[in-house]
Amino acid sequence: MTSAAAAPYITDDFLLSTETARALYHDYAAAMPIYDYHCHLPPEDLSANRAFETLYDVWLDGDHYKWRAMRQNGVPESHCTGDADPYDKFLAFARTVPQTLRNPLHHWTHLELRRYFDIDLLLNEDTAKEVWDEANRQLKRLRVSDILDRFNVALVGTIDDPADDLGHHKTLFDDPSILPDTAVVPAFRPDNLYNDQGATNLREYSDRLAGGACETLGQLLDAIDASLDRFHALGGRLSDHGLPSIPDVEPVDVHELDRVFRAARDGQASPHERDQFDLGILLHVAQRYHTLGWSAQYHLGEMRNNNGWAYDHIGRHIGFDSIGDRRQAPGMSRFFGELTRRECLPNCVLYNLNPADNYVFASMAGNFVGGGDTSGKAGRMQYGSGWWFLDQKEGMTWQINALSNLGLLTRFIGMLTDSRSFLSYPRHEYFRRLLCDILGRDAEAGEVPNDLEVLGKVVQDISFNNARDYFGMPLKGRHA
Amino acid sequence: MTSAAAAPYITDDFLLSTETARALYHDYAAAMPIYDYHCHLPPEDLSANRAFETLYDVWLDGDHYKWRAMRQNGVPESHCTGDADPYDKFLAFARTVPQTLRNPLHHWTHLELRRYFDIDLLLNEDTAKEVWDEANRQLKRLRVSDILDRFNVALVGTIDDPADDLGHHKTLFDDPSILPDTAVVPAFRPDNLYNDQGATNLREYSDRLAGGACETLGQLLDAIDASLDRFHALGGRLSDHGLPSIPDVEPVDVHELDRVFRAARDGQASPHERDQFDLGILLHVAQRYHTLGWSAQYHLGEMRNNNGWAYDHIGRHIGFDSIGDRRQAPGMSRFFGELTRRECLPNCVLYNLNPADNYVFASMAGNFVGGGDTSGKAGRMQYGSGWWFLDQKEGMTWQINALSNLGLLTRFIGMLTDSRSFLSYPRHEYFRRLLCDILGRDAEAGEVPNDLEVLGKVVQDISFNNARDYFGMPLKGRHA
Amino acid sequence: MTSAAAAPYITDDFLLSTETARALYHDYAAAMPIYDYHCHLPPEDLSANRAFETLYDVWLDGDHYKWRAMRQNGVPESHCTGDADPYDKFLAFARTVPQTLRNPLHHWTHLELRRYFDIDLLLNEDTAKEVWDEANRQLKRLRVSDILDRFNVALVGTIDDPADDLGHHKTLFDDPSILPDTAVVPAFRPDNLYNDQGATNLREYSDRLAGGACETLGQLLDAIDASLDRFHALGGRLSDHGLPSIPDVEPVDVHELDRVFRAARDGQASPHERDQFDLGILLHVAQRYHTLGWSAQYHLGEMRNNNGWAYDHIGRHIGFDSIGDRRQAPGMSRFFGELTRRECLPNCVLYNLNPADNYVFASMAGNFVGGGDTSGKAGRMQYGSGWWFLDQKEGMTWQINALSNLGLLTRFIGMLTDSRSFLSYPRHEYFRRLLCDILGRDAEAGEVPNDLEVLGKVVQDISFNNARDYFGMPLKGRHA
Repeated sequence: MTSAAAAPYITDDFLLSTETARALYHDYAAAMPIYDYHCHLPPEDLSANRAFETLYDVWLDGDHYKWRAMRQNGVPESHCTGDADPYDKFLAFARTVPQTLRNPLHHWTHLELRRYFDIDLLLNEDTAKEVWDEANRQLKRLRVSDILDRFNVALVGTIDDPADDLGHHKTLFDDPSILPDTAVVPAFRPDNLYNDQGATNLREYSDRLAGGACETLGQLLDAIDASLDRFHALGGRLSDHGLPSIPDVEPVDVHELDRVFRAARDGQASPHERDQFDLGILLHVAQRYHTLGWSAQYHLGEMRNNNGWAYDHIGRHIGFDSIGDRRQAPGMSRFFGELTRRECLPNCVLYNLNPADNYVFASMAGNFVGGGDTSGKAGRMQYGSGWWFLDQKEGMTWQINALSNLGLLTRFIGMLTDSRSFLSYPRHEYFRRLLCDILGRDAEAGEVPNDLEVLGKVVQDISFNNARDYFGMPLKGRHA
Repeated sequence: MTSAAAAPYITDDFLLSTETARALYHDYAAAMPIYDYHCHLPPEDLSANRAFETLYDVWLDGDHYKWRAMRQNGVPESHCTGDADPYDKFLAFARTVPQTLRNPLHHWTHLELRRYFDIDLLLNEDTAKEVWDEANRQLKRLRVSDILDRFNVALVGTIDDPADDLGHHKTLFDDPSILPDTAVVPAFRPDNLYNDQGATNLREYSDRLAGGACETLGQLLDAIDASLDRFHALGGRLSDHGLPSIPDVEPVDVHELDRVFRAARDGQASPHERDQFDLGILLHVAQRYHTLGWSAQYHLGEMRNNNGWAYDHIGRHIGFDSIGDRRQAPGMSRFFGELTRRECLPNCVLYNLNPADNYVFASMAGNFVGGGDTSGKAGRMQYGSGWWFLDQKEGMTWQINALSNLGLLTRFIGMLTDSRSFLSYPRHEYFRRLLCDILGRDAEAGEVPNDLEVLGKVVQDISFNNARDYFGMPLKGRHA
Repeated sequence: MTSAAAAPYITDDFLLSTETARALYHDYAAAMPIYDYHCHLPPEDLSANRAFETLYDVWLDGDHYKWRAMRQNGVPESHCTGDADPYDKFLAFARTVPQTLRNPLHHWTHLELRRYFDIDLLLNEDTAKEVWDEANRQLKRLRVSDILDRFNVALVGTIDDPADDLGHHKTLFDDPSILPDTAVVPAFRPDNLYNDQGATNLREYSDRLAGGACETLGQLLDAIDASLDRFHALGGRLSDHGLPSIPDVEPVDVHELDRVFRAARDGQASPHERDQFDLGILLHVAQRYHTLGWSAQYHLGEMRNNNGWAYDHIGRHIGFDSIGDRRQAPGMSRFFGELTRRECLPNCVLYNLNPADNYVFASMAGNFVGGGDTSGKAGRMQYGSGWWFLDQKEGMTWQINALSNLGLLTRFIGMLTDSRSFLSYPRHEYFRRLLCDILGRDAEAGEVPNDLEVLGKVVQDISFNNARDYFGMPLKGRHA
């Protein structure tokens, strides 16, 4: 669908400012499959091969990025997390979109309308109804498998709680024909255990994880290990951890950790003991990852639930989170240093939320390859792609530059969607265009050798090959 | 006045690198009035509609930016804060200017000479005398009202102490004809109360504020409230607060705060108690601002009086201040979070001095719109323009980009002078040129829709309309 | 040596994107001598006027930058710090180089091959043997004096331990004909005294420094002063200090410092006492520098030995160091502020390792010129060039911009190699090209006056003249 009013926006050469960039993107990057090793897609939608009723269901429902923008545009809470009519919520979003100029939402929104529905209208109050109707019409024919097929998605890694029964993953594992060309694997995210921002209390959660009263550290670790085995059996080779920072405390021995666990379970642990417990859990699971051949992800730097009223009245994960400014280097240095001493450092991906720390992360990652790492694996400690607030052109450019200057860009495992929505796959396209633009500029400025074949291979590696080789999980169907 | 030696510098298209930028600036931005909601202009000069004797009086006197540059160029203190002859000081400055290449002073200096005096010479030792004579000649015909008229200044918000009698503001309020087209309002800045960098001691200051012995918290809060009412009666709807950071301590109840005040008044408060007191005052006044419909500004990140010798021998505010590196997020999160819980968050503008914290501030501002804020006001928590050391092209660009990526640029209330000098109004021009250049580049690169009308409205809103609507203070004369 | 396969990479106009930049570099910068006031060249190689056997000896041996890149490319430790054959190590490096695209190593490597050996091949597995043979052939005719002559090096400042006997420096001092046109001076770096990252223990080290049992603070300070005199007698006018940060503690008096020294010597000092001791030493030597007319360098922000396994099994300074994220402002403010109060602030150069702190450093440096500084010396407190991880285009650009915006770029003392290798002199060329490119862009954009003569002088001053005048050390031969 096009319109006379449509501006020449997000064209074929979007973000590609040089000839070299255009050649790199169109001839090398565009056709590469997507290896989406970290997203928040609901396993139940994947196993059911869901179709979506409306654009609201697939696009707005649960999207805290959009809520933040809408609130800043004066939209009341009823039209964000509240119970207004879905179309009215969509209309409030459509009114907000023109106000998001220069915000990544403006790019994502129009890129997604184009790539999924071939709609090149600018979304606003006037075009809202037309977009709503047309998208809903098309959604009827668009199941999850169609989307994964259209975007050439070779792998989806969802984020799952250790206490989850992984039933949807089991369904997918047992019937490969549901999503014939896309491997789906669960990622183990034990945040509810060690993260004091967790919603659940430790007693309740550890009992649930253990499937009964969990009164000793031994019982807890057994439950963790059993959960890891369940993930492993379904193809899981990935974990994830979200923390404000890695606790900068001395590790304690197993007897002391048992005591601390009991105190934490009773809500009696001091902040320092709570940090000791959290670090103990992080160390335990990291050693298990190493044994199992897994890769660990660490998302550091968040500061959650800043709006007291909203936390009290609405809850968590609704768009009142922020970038923190804790020190990150000491905790990382101690934690990963300890793992090298124990000679059990797994593959690790470090994601940073505060751009002021980009160079700290990029240099830190470089400390843990070689030395105690006897893997001889290129790029085994990764400085991961720009994340959350940094998942936009400026933030991604900073990450790419920091990684380039302090590490090996060519070994980078690249982009992930980190999204709750099936409409987010164009983020890979966005990333690849940006990457090609950066390399293209450098090549035409004479700052890298202007050799299209060499640069094209780098682009293809970062787009897909590096991640595939790094994680080493089996692919399916035409990607096998 | 021109000269054969003049370089083609700061031309009509200064900072405007694209056709779109030039159209945006010349056709949309240039003619907009100035809404200067934050400056340090002396109320007595405004109420007296002062004329200035010499370029020294209007340009160098009290300007710590210039002193810093001069000192770094080897100029002795006698020619900065000392008692050298005004022309000799001016000459020392003129010798320094060529050495300020790439420093914002080089831009400000020549922009101001052009805009106020039509002098397009490069200022240096050779041109100093000619510039001095010509500017002084013209100054005889240039009263404050002429300056405000020439720069189309719709509003001036000065910074005033709560203990000030606001006599000059009353004069202006009672006789609107002194500055017929410019509203002048006082802004309430209670730094001497809560800020331990204050020059006065708390006993002396609180007694002065209360107009007598101020021995209890109740008396102090009554005095604060009475002062707020005096500001309000003269049109004040603005406050300002300058702190290294917002104290990250638990708020205490009114009884405990009374005890802490008495201790602080006697100089007996511990650093932690002093923080509790400061936070108590900040919370009290914020709630009052909310009740009165005011807007609060917070300038965070300063680190003052670093040069011990200069502090002991000369004093404060003389150019030995610096950018601090305290953590900013925890204090802001707790303070604004508490105000949302109390449902009394006023309009707030957050200014950041350390560019490493730009993203922290931009994301923090986004946490406090919606939720406990039931105003439904677009852009009610603002991330303010680049300030002090950041009031230059690089710093302003960073702020605009951080705001764009994490918030709504289109709702931005834009620029302020923050200056002690009447010669600083071209800073608005500078800001607008930069803003137009940024949007123009994006438009021509296809990163925003290239629609001059849409972009022109954005530019006009940020230049003037947004601030006018945000603060909602009545304007005068041709701006009414 | 050229080759048909050579890409047009690192051309004559490398990094020079405008006509103005090219004119500035080729006509003004290129011919300036090098004043290398900070490097880690071995004094024994200088005094012996060494020739190098192989490219390994002069290029790879001891280079932790290269080791980090190699490890990240999967090269085993045997080929980094281990005992593999030199050619095999070189081959492992050659295989790594193509993977360093966008890393400064890619630039340095090819720039150095071109400038020293006229080899314009891209180094990789295929070209490794040819490069090795050709470079080794040429090395036979390339002594240290030839290198210094070819790169027009007027001065070399090595880094030396206070306990060193400076025998090689004495040889060079006594026989100026060894390096006829290059002054070589030692720089006093007392890190082993105050820096708790030091390898030696304080008792052993202070005894060694004192040449006998060093049991009191008085004995220690006497030993320090005697060492300073030895450096001074051989032309030394420079010191250097590497610390995570300047300790932010109150200075203690000499009696207390004596007590703290005895505790530290016995390994009984608390962390706080250790900080007090370190600060005491820093204050003592700074006062001596002031008396002697020396300049002090402070390299702040390192976080060393992060990989526990590598530290235990291999040691220090082998490429497992990182960028720290401590607060820097409070320690600097207190330390330099104290020196102004004592009226004994020497010339100081502040180097920053964490780019998030660039503006903190640039503003901090501006606090300590004027006031207690009665030197009237332009630019006496320097914010130094991008260092270690920041010694690349992005990091150097940030430093130049921060300095420009907050200080006086024109007074900048510019570049240093900071290298252990005689093949690093092209770093000055790299810096100068970048500087010319930055000024050229500004000039052509109308952001600085486009006056080639003025800009050319700025470039020449920053390339050489400013450092020569700042440090004031006598030069030799054709540079005298």
